[in-house]
Amino acid sequence: MIDMLAMGQQVLASQAFSRLLGTQLTSFNDEVVELRLPLNDDLTQQNGFVHGGVISYLADNALTFAGGTQLGPAVLTVEYKINYLRPAVGVALIARATVVYAGKTTATCRCDVLSVSTEGVEKICATAQGTIAKIG
Amino acid sequence: MIDMLAMGQQVLASQAFSRLLGTQLTSFNDEVVELRLPLNDDLTQQNGFVHGGVISYLADNALTFAGGTQLGPAVLTVEYKINYLRPAVGVALIARATVVYAGKTTATCRCDVLSVSTEGVEKICATAQGTIAKIG
Amino acid sequence: MIDMLAMGQQVLASQAFSRLLGTQLTSFNDEVVELRLPLNDDLTQQNGFVHGGVISYLADNALTFAGGTQLGPAVLTVEYKINYLRPAVGVALIARATVVYAGKTTATCRCDVLSVSTEGVEKICATAQGTIAKIG
Amino acid sequence: MIDMLAMGQQVLASQAFSRLLGTQLTSFNDEVVELRLPLNDDLTQQNGFVHGGVISYLADNALTFAGGTQLGPAVLTVEYKINYLRPAVGVALIARATVVYAGKTTATCRCDVLSVSTEGVEKICATAQGTIAKIG
Repeated sequence: MIDMLAMGQQVLASQAFSRLLGTQLTSFNDEVVELRLPLNDDLTQQNGFVHGGVISYLADNALTFAGGTQLGPAVLTVEYKINYLRPAVGVALIARATVVYAGKTTATCRCDVLSVSTEGVEKICATAQGTIAKIG
Repeated sequence: MIDMLAMGQQVLASQAFSRLLGTQLTSFNDEVVELRLPLNDDLTQQNGFVHGGVISYLADNALTFAGGTQLGPAVLTVEYKINYLRPAVGVALIARATVVYAGKTTATCRCDVLSVSTEGVEKICATAQGTIAKIG
Repeated sequence: MIDMLAMGQQVLASQAFSRLLGTQLTSFNDEVVELRLPLNDDLTQQNGFVHGGVISYLADNALTFAGGTQLGPAVLTVEYKINYLRPAVGVALIARATVVYAGKTTATCRCDVLSVSTEGVEKICATAQGTIAKIG
Repeated sequence: MIDMLAMGQQVLASQAFSRLLGTQLTSFNDEVVELRLPLNDDLTQQNGFVHGGVISYLADNALTFAGGTQLGPAVLTVEYKINYLRPAVGVALIARATVVYAGKTTATCRCDVLSVSTEGVEKICATAQGTIAKIG
């Protein structure tokens, strides 16, 4: 039996940028992909909120992993769009991605990004939709 | 006379995440906004290319600054979409953003992200389009 | 008590383009907005499938109506993105839209477009995400 | 020598929906694709402006034709996003699309949609970006 989560965590660990930010893969299966990013001051913009680029990075990565559940490990994000809904603050970000539709070589995925407060309350702060493709 | 570039650089310097990555604002005027990001191994994904999240961050930030040239300094990105065109490698990324249309409270902007080789050759690696809004 | 569905149908009936195409509003409440478009040969492209522009029109309109459930009748679509998932054929298209997040003046909405076969089987053919804003 | 414009016009003429609306292909070459749509009351929404769905249709179609200049006639729109910039009124809409980047099987394209007044003055009313793919 393949431990998909462990496999996914290995891929994530091989992304230097994800190591720099401290991203964790907490779910990786056909139902949902979940990335978690503990927050710190390095990830903020000029108003003290999480930088939009951090939110985008997390959504993009979760979309790619979601595509990977259907298309295999060799995938990349072709394109995506993201709507920022609320300023993000708190102790962590969570990105939850699902596959809307998968063909043989591409998958269309969705992702919600939520901020987690000290008390563990989750609030949606962004939502994204994108296309993932098999490489080669 | 206001030194717009210096003002923009101050805003960028107040973004902890942009300091972490090392982003520079090299143009900031009504014609074009240009951000430059020297590349290093911390910014890569599992195949050695620049992580998509880094490209997205740079595009998002350039779009926001472009909106700021029309709407003033208190702006945020409402939403954007990005197409990744080519894997990015090289010594730096450049994001060049322009305003397509600006109303009183929102601006629609475009941004190309280019990779720069050791020899200084620029290749487009992503293109983005988004909405910037005045805060408050 | 206000009959929201009747009110929404009146708005739809005042859109000449929706009358030309024959669009019907079949649900209009806080949970979901549903538009239905009976298909005919006038709505096809060169391969006999429903023209992408028809699918886009329906998604765009459903997104706007969804935003209207939160923001009132005077709304417009600021922007949206759509992914075409499968060629659309059949007797009708259905667009189902929901609100992901609503602020005071804007709402972010999602919409799935499904094709309906002669037997009544629904298949997703497109998915969209967009921003709706209050006018004025 | 192949008459590309005539070839493109034949494709457009084979789209029933484009015949219904009355769309014309006025340029079709490597530099630019231009579609023109004479306006009439059937194409409006409840406030008398051109229906967003009409603008989307035209942008989508222009993007596909632009992709076709690089990828050949058998292409389809995978996805696109559109920002509506201004209400559209006037005697015609013009959509001008260009290719940002083309690979072997996909092309990323941009499109501006402009409204044309009785006096011939063009005003941008929407801008779009999307992915076109070769079929099969």
